[in-house]
Amino acid sequence: MVQYERIPDAVVRRLPGYYRNLRELEAMGVTRLSSQALGERMGLTASQIRQDINCFGGFGQQGYGYHVPKLKKRIGQILGIDREHRVIIVGAGNIGSAVAHYPTFRNEGFRVEALFDTDVKRIGQVVQGAPILPVSGLEEYLKSNEVDILVLATPAGSAQSILEIAKAARVPGIWNFAPVDLDTPEWMEISNVHLSDSLMSLSFRLHERDVHAHKESQWTKE
Amino acid sequence: MVQYERIPDAVVRRLPGYYRNLRELEAMGVTRLSSQALGERMGLTASQIRQDINCFGGFGQQGYGYHVPKLKKRIGQILGIDREHRVIIVGAGNIGSAVAHYPTFRNEGFRVEALFDTDVKRIGQVVQGAPILPVSGLEEYLKSNEVDILVLATPAGSAQSILEIAKAARVPGIWNFAPVDLDTPEWMEISNVHLSDSLMSLSFRLHERDVHAHKESQWTKE
Repeated sequence: MVQYERIPDAVVRRLPGYYRNLRELEAMGVTRLSSQALGERMGLTASQIRQDINCFGGFGQQGYGYHVPKLKKRIGQILGIDREHRVIIVGAGNIGSAVAHYPTFRNEGFRVEALFDTDVKRIGQVVQGAPILPVSGLEEYLKSNEVDILVLATPAGSAQSILEIAKAARVPGIWNFAPVDLDTPEWMEISNVHLSDSLMSLSFRLHERDVHAHKESQWTKE
Repeated sequence: MVQYERIPDAVVRRLPGYYRNLRELEAMGVTRLSSQALGERMGLTASQIRQDINCFGGFGQQGYGYHVPKLKKRIGQILGIDREHRVIIVGAGNIGSAVAHYPTFRNEGFRVEALFDTDVKRIGQVVQGAPILPVSGLEEYLKSNEVDILVLATPAGSAQSILEIAKAARVPGIWNFAPVDLDTPEWMEISNVHLSDSLMSLSFRLHERDVHAHKESQWTKE
C-alpha cells in the first residue's frame, strides 16, 4: 500500500474559511487581493496565508496578489465541492430539517435525496423536494442507492445503531450532529457538529472572564 | 489591571467533551473510572487525561480513578453551566428554531427568553414558551432586559448589523451560526458554528481519499 501524507489538520480546518471568504469576495466583484488584505479579513498574518496557499501550488504573483475567482475555484476543487454529493439525512427533527434547508447544501452540490425518521407524522412529508421515509427502510434503501454522506441527526441514543447500518452499507461519509463520540472504522470519514460543545465553550469563556473580573475587583480593594 | 493566563485553548476545547462523556457515564450509573477507561472512551491517552484534569486540581486518587459525579460537577462549574444564562435568538428560521428546541438548552440552564425575526408570519408565535418578537424591537428589548448570550441565526447579510446592536447593548456572549467571520470587540466572547465549514472538511476528507486511492491504483498498474 502506498503511504501518503495528509495535509496538516490545521490547514484543512482553515480551507473552508478560505473558500467562504473568497466566495464572498467574488460576489462583491473583487478579482485580485493581496495576502495582507486576505489575512486581515481572516484574522491571519500575510505570511500564514502565503504558507497555507503554497501547500496547494503557487497561486500568488509577486506584486499582484491572488486571483480571487481562480483561487476560489482551486480551493473548491481541493475541498471536493466541485462534485455532486448524494446525501441522506437520518432524523427529520429540528436539526435534520435545518440541515435540509441549509443553503450551502443546494448551492454547493450536496443533493439531499431522502430523509429518514421514526415519527409516523413526519413520514410521507417532503422537505425541499426530498421525501421523509421510515427509518426501518434505511438498510434496504442503502442496498439500492449509493450515498456519499449520511447526516446523523437522531437523538444520542439511536446514533450508534444508525452508524452500524451505515458501516454495513459502506457509506463513506458521516456528518454527525448527535451529541456522542462515535466509533468509526478507518475507511469512514466523520465530521462532528457538537452544538452543545460549542455552547459550553462560550459559557466557559464568559464564566472565566467573570471569575477574573471578580479576582480583579478584590485585588483593587486591597 | 491584573494579568492572568487563560487555560490553553486545546484543553478548553476538550472540556465540553469531558462533560458530555461524564454526563453519559453518570446516567449509566458509573461512579468511578480510571484515566485509561476515560481515555479510551474519548480517544485520548491516559496521560493526556491526567494532564488535562490536573489543570483544575487533583481529582484522581492513585488506584481509585476519578469519581464521576464529582468530576462532572467540577467541570460543569468550570464551564459555567451550573449557572442560569439568559438567551435570546435572533433569526427564528430553521437554525434558530432548532437551537430553541435543542435539549441542552433547557437541561443545562440556558433559558431562551425571546426570539426575534423580520417575518410577519413568524412574529407572535411561541417557540418552547418563548415569543417571537419583531427584530425592529431588539434594541429596545436589550435596554430593559439583561441578556447573557445572543444566538445569531440570521442570514449572513444581516449578521453584522445585529452584532452592532449587541455591541451597543454590551451583550457579553454571541453564539454565531451565520456563515461569516464577525468583528467583535475584545470584551465580547463569540463561539462560531460554521456548518458549511464542517461539511466542507468532510467533503475534503472524502475527496482526498479518492485522489489517493486513484494515485494508488495508478501506482499499482505501473
